[in-house]
Amino acid sequence: MALAFKRPGPGAIRRFFPILDWGSDYRKDTLVSDLVAAVIVTIMLIPQSLAYALLAGLPAEMGLYASILPLVAYAIFGTSRALAVGPVAVVSLMTAAAIGNLGLEQGTSDYALAAITLAFLSGAILLVMGVFRLGFLANFLSHPVIAGFITASGLLIATSQAKHILGVEAQGHALFDRVGSLVANIGDTNWITLVVGAASVAFLFWVRKGMKPLLIKVGLKPRLADILAKAGPVLAVAVTTLFSVLFDFQGRGVAIVGDVPQGLPPLTAPQFDLELWGQLFGSALLISIIGFVESISVAQTLAAKKKQRITPDQELVGLGASNIAAAVSGGYPVTGGFARSVVNFDAGAETPAAGAFTAVGIALAALLLTPLLYFLPTATLAATIIVAVLSLVDFSILKRTWSYSKADFAAVAATILLTLTFGVELGVSAGVVLSIVLFLYKTSRPHIAEIGLVPGTEHFRNIDRHTVLTHPELLSLRLDENLYFANARYIEDYILDRLANDQPLKHVVLNCAAVNAIDLSALESLEELNRRLNDMGIKLHLSEVKGPVMDRLQRTHFLGELHGQVFLSHYGAMRALGPVTGLAPIRSGPGGDDVAT
Amino acid sequence: MALAFKRPGPGAIRRFFPILDWGSDYRKDTLVSDLVAAVIVTIMLIPQSLAYALLAGLPAEMGLYASILPLVAYAIFGTSRALAVGPVAVVSLMTAAAIGNLGLEQGTSDYALAAITLAFLSGAILLVMGVFRLGFLANFLSHPVIAGFITASGLLIATSQAKHILGVEAQGHALFDRVGSLVANIGDTNWITLVVGAASVAFLFWVRKGMKPLLIKVGLKPRLADILAKAGPVLAVAVTTLFSVLFDFQGRGVAIVGDVPQGLPPLTAPQFDLELWGQLFGSALLISIIGFVESISVAQTLAAKKKQRITPDQELVGLGASNIAAAVSGGYPVTGGFARSVVNFDAGAETPAAGAFTAVGIALAALLLTPLLYFLPTATLAATIIVAVLSLVDFSILKRTWSYSKADFAAVAATILLTLTFGVELGVSAGVVLSIVLFLYKTSRPHIAEIGLVPGTEHFRNIDRHTVLTHPELLSLRLDENLYFANARYIEDYILDRLANDQPLKHVVLNCAAVNAIDLSALESLEELNRRLNDMGIKLHLSEVKGPVMDRLQRTHFLGELHGQVFLSHYGAMRALGPVTGLAPIRSGPGGDDVAT
Repeated sequence: MALAFKRPGPGAIRRFFPILDWGSDYRKDTLVSDLVAAVIVTIMLIPQSLAYALLAGLPAEMGLYASILPLVAYAIFGTSRALAVGPVAVVSLMTAAAIGNLGLEQGTSDYALAAITLAFLSGAILLVMGVFRLGFLANFLSHPVIAGFITASGLLIATSQAKHILGVEAQGHALFDRVGSLVANIGDTNWITLVVGAASVAFLFWVRKGMKPLLIKVGLKPRLADILAKAGPVLAVAVTTLFSVLFDFQGRGVAIVGDVPQGLPPLTAPQFDLELWGQLFGSALLISIIGFVESISVAQTLAAKKKQRITPDQELVGLGASNIAAAVSGGYPVTGGFARSVVNFDAGAETPAAGAFTAVGIALAALLLTPLLYFLPTATLAATIIVAVLSLVDFSILKRTWSYSKADFAAVAATILLTLTFGVELGVSAGVVLSIVLFLYKTSRPHIAEIGLVPGTEHFRNIDRHTVLTHPELLSLRLDENLYFANARYIEDYILDRLANDQPLKHVVLNCAAVNAIDLSALESLEELNRRLNDMGIKLHLSEVKGPVMDRLQRTHFLGELHGQVFLSHYGAMRALGPVTGLAPIRSGPGGDDVAT
Repeated sequence: MALAFKRPGPGAIRRFFPILDWGSDYRKDTLVSDLVAAVIVTIMLIPQSLAYALLAGLPAEMGLYASILPLVAYAIFGTSRALAVGPVAVVSLMTAAAIGNLGLEQGTSDYALAAITLAFLSGAILLVMGVFRLGFLANFLSHPVIAGFITASGLLIATSQAKHILGVEAQGHALFDRVGSLVANIGDTNWITLVVGAASVAFLFWVRKGMKPLLIKVGLKPRLADILAKAGPVLAVAVTTLFSVLFDFQGRGVAIVGDVPQGLPPLTAPQFDLELWGQLFGSALLISIIGFVESISVAQTLAAKKKQRITPDQELVGLGASNIAAAVSGGYPVTGGFARSVVNFDAGAETPAAGAFTAVGIALAALLLTPLLYFLPTATLAATIIVAVLSLVDFSILKRTWSYSKADFAAVAATILLTLTFGVELGVSAGVVLSIVLFLYKTSRPHIAEIGLVPGTEHFRNIDRHTVLTHPELLSLRLDENLYFANARYIEDYILDRLANDQPLKHVVLNCAAVNAIDLSALESLEELNRRLNDMGIKLHLSEVKGPVMDRLQRTHFLGELHGQVFLSHYGAMRALGPVTGLAPIRSGPGGDDVAT
C-alpha cells in the first residue's frame, strides 16, 4: 500500500492545467476581446522580438521563434489572464552575458545552441521549482534589489545598443568597458546609421509622449489613439526599411538585418552536455528567478485590478513550460514582459487564449513578412530597445531607501554599482547576498529594551521612551528578536553586563513577546544565564512566551531547572513578584507618553 | 582638525596590552602558583606538541616550536588568565587538510613552509577581526554545528592515526577513503608497532580512568594524584622509548620519530606569494574562526568560574599575535586548547604569566631533551592523539537536537556526515550555511496567530490555544516575525487569503509586538495591504509598534496613507474600535487557559 501510486484527483489536474478552468466557459464575446488584444500585441511584439534577439546576440528570427510556441505553452499552463510572454530586455541581456561568459562568439551556431540549452535549463529549473513549490525563493530578491537591478540593466542595455546607433564596434559586458570601447571607435561612426538611429530614437520618444494627444486632437477616440501609438515601432521599422531600399543603405555601409529565414520555427533540441550544463546552471538559475520575479510582479498587479488571483507556484510551471517550448522550437529564454502585458490587459485580453492568438500572429509574420525585413537597419531595432529600456531607469529607489533604511540603501547601491561595473550576474547576486547578510547582522545584535508599566494600563513600554512605573527589585527586559545562534551569546553577555552594577535586584523578567523562536544554541545561553543569575542571588523569569516556543521548551529540562517562573503576561509577572500598587519610582523618558513611539 | 590623528589614551593601550593590567600588581604568591601550573602543563604539552605536529603532517620539532613563542605572545596580548595556547588536535587536522588540498607532500620543506604561511595568514585574519571587532562572526557557528564538527573531527583524527598504530600506509582526508586504504594495506601490519600502539592506547585509557583512584588508594593526596595522572603520556613516551632502544625497534621496521633538531626555534618567515595566499585564504579563515570558537568557549567557561571576564575582541588580538609568533618561529597554527587549559586552571594558574613560564619549559625541552626522542615510536604519539580525541566524540548532540529542533538536527547531521565524507572544510562550511538557510527559511514563512482578549486581563493570546474574547467586526492578528523582503509577500498573501470569507469584518488590527523591523519591501506590502483592505471596506490598524520601528515609519508617507490608526496597546485598539464590555462570542481553544502556552 505504501508504495502504491496515488492517482491525481481532478483538483490536481486542474492545478496543473489552468486552461481547464477558463477554457470550459469560453464564450464568443471573450473570443472577440482576446482576438483584438492579440492583434495589438502582435504588432507590438514583432519589432520587439527582432530587437531583443539582437540584444541577446542571436539572429533576428530566434526572437520571432521565441514568441510562438512559448506563448501557446503559457496559455495552457499559466494562471494569469493578461500576462504576455516572450523575449524581454533584461532576460535577453542576461542571456548574452551568460553565453558571453563561456567565450562563445555571437553569430556562431554554438552560440545559438547555447541559448537554446539555456532556455531548456531555465525551463527545467522553473518546472522543478513549481512542482516542489519553491516559488518563495524569489522572495529573497528584495524590492530594492530588484529596482536597482532593473535600473542598472536598463543603462547597460541602452549603452549596449549605442554601437548600433553609431555603426561602430564595441565590446565588454560592463558599462565602463563598453563606453571606453565606444569612445575608442567613435572615429568609425557611420553617419547614415547615426541619422537613422537618432531619428528613430527621437521619433519613438515622441510617439510615447506626443502622438496620442495629437491623434486625439485630430478626432480619434482615446482608446484607438492609444493603440495606434503602440504601433509606433512598426511604423519606424517600415519607414526606415523603405529608406534603406530606396537609398541603398547596404551599399553605404549601414548594418542591416539581412537574410531572415522564412517559415515556421524549426524543431530544435538543447545540447545534452553535462559540462555545458554545469557552466550554464548558475546563469540559468538567475535568469529563471529574475524572469519569474519580473513576470509575477506584473501578473499580480494586473490580476489585482480585476480582483483575480494568480497561483505563484503554477506560474512557475507555466513559465517553465514556455521555456521548454522555446528550447524545442529554436527560441531562447522567455518570460512575462511588463510593457506588453499592460498593453494586452488594456487592449481587453480576458484569458490566456489571447496569448495563443498572438502566437498565431507571430507565426504568420515568420511565414510571410521575413523577406521584407532584409533591408531593415539594425539601428532602428537598437532605437526601439533604447527607448523601451530607458523607461526602466529610475534612480529614485536610491533616495527612498536612503531616507528609510540604510541597509536597504546599501543593498540597492551595491546592486547598481556592481551590475554596472561587473555585469548583471555578479550585480544581482551581490545584491541578494548583501541584503541577507545585513539582515543577519541586524538580528545578530538585537535591540533589548528595559520596560516599565504604562500607568493606568497593563501595558509595558521602553523606559527611555515613555513615562512608566518600575520596581527597584525587578528588572524587566524586552528581547526584540528571535533567540538563535547568531545572537545567543550577544544577549547572554548583554544581560550579564547590564546586571553588573544593579545591587538591590532580586528578579529579572525577560519579556518574550517578540521572541518567535529559541534554537538550541539560545536555549544553552538561557540555561547559562539562569545559572549565573542564580549565583548572583537573582531569579530569572520569562513572560509572554508564545505557544510554539513554549511547546518546544516543554520538551527540555529547562523549565524544570529555571529558578524563576514563566508568566502568561508581563503584568501578571509584575503583580506576582512585587506589589503593583507600591511601585516606587516613576521614571520618565524623553519620549513622554505619545501614542505608540 | 578632522584629519588630526587621535593619540590613543591609556585606556586604548591597556585594551591592546592586557599584560599592563595584571602585570602591575603581580605578587610573589601569584608567581609560585603560575610556576607550579607551568611545570604541569609543560609535562603534558611535550608529548602533545610532538603528536599534533605528526597529525598535521609536520616534523615533530615544529610542534615544540609552536609551543614556545606563541605562548609568550598570548601572555602579552590575551585576556584569559587560564587559557593554555599551542597546537591542538582539530586545528592540526585542518592544517593537514588545507595543505593537502594544495597537493603538497608531507615531509617536504614546501609543506612546512605552507604551514608557516598558514599560521601567518590565520594570525593576520585574527588580528584584523580583533581590531575591527568582528568577533561576532564566530556566533554564526551554532553550538550544534560546533558539537557535530568536533565529534566528526575526532573520528577523522582517530582513524588518521590508526595507520601509525598498525604501521601501514594509508591515504585520504575523508573517513571512508582512509578506512578503505587501511583495510587494503592491513596485510603489511607491523606486529611490534601494533603491540606498542595498542598497549599505549590501553595504558592511556587506564591512566584517565583508573590511575588517579589507585594513587589515592596508595596514600597520595587527590590533587597530587590528579597531577601525576596527567603525566601518563610522558610515562608512555619514556617507557616505549626505552623499549625501542633496548629491543632495536628501528631494525625491526617500527617507525620512530628519528632526528629532532636540538636547539631553540629558528627564525622563519611566511612565503610572500599572493597565489599561495589566495589558495590558503579560505582555509586560514576557517581555521581562525574554528580556533577562536574553541578557544573562547574554554576561556569563558574558566573565567566564569572565578567571576572574571574576558574580552572576545581582545582574545582575537591575543590569538592573532600567537599565530604570527608561530609563523616567525617555525611553528604552525595554534589556538587555546581545551584539555590543557583545564589542567592549567586546575593546577592553579592565576595569570597569563603561567603560559610564558610554560614556554620556557618547552624551550628547555627543545634545547635538552630532543636527542632522547630519536628512538620514540610514532605509535606512542598516535596513541596519545587517539585517546585525547576520542573523548571529543559525542553523538548525544544528535539526540538532543532531534528532540528539540529539527532545523538544528539537520544542521548537525549535515555537518557530521559531510565532515566524515568530504573532510573538515566542506563539513563545517556546509553546517554554517545550512543553519543560516534554515533560519532564513523559517523567517520567510512566519507564524501568524489570530488573537483574542484573555478574560479579566488586558492581555491577548492565540484563539486556538486559549479561551479568549473576540469581536465579530474586528480581526486581531499577531505577526510573529520581523517583516522583511523574505516574508513580505507571504504575509500579504496570507492576510488577503484569510479575509476572503470574513463577511462582517470592519477592522483588521495587526499586533506588531513581535515585529522588530520593517524593511522597505515589507513597507510596500503593508501599503498594498492598506489599499486592498480599503477596497474591501476594511480599515487596517497597527498596535504595539515598537519605538525603533515607529521612528522609521514616521519618516515615510505610510502613516498618513493608513486608513486606520496606530495604537499603543492592543487593548487600547480593541477598546477604541469595539465596545470591550459587549464582546460577543467566547471562543475556546483546545489549550484552555494554562499558564503561558
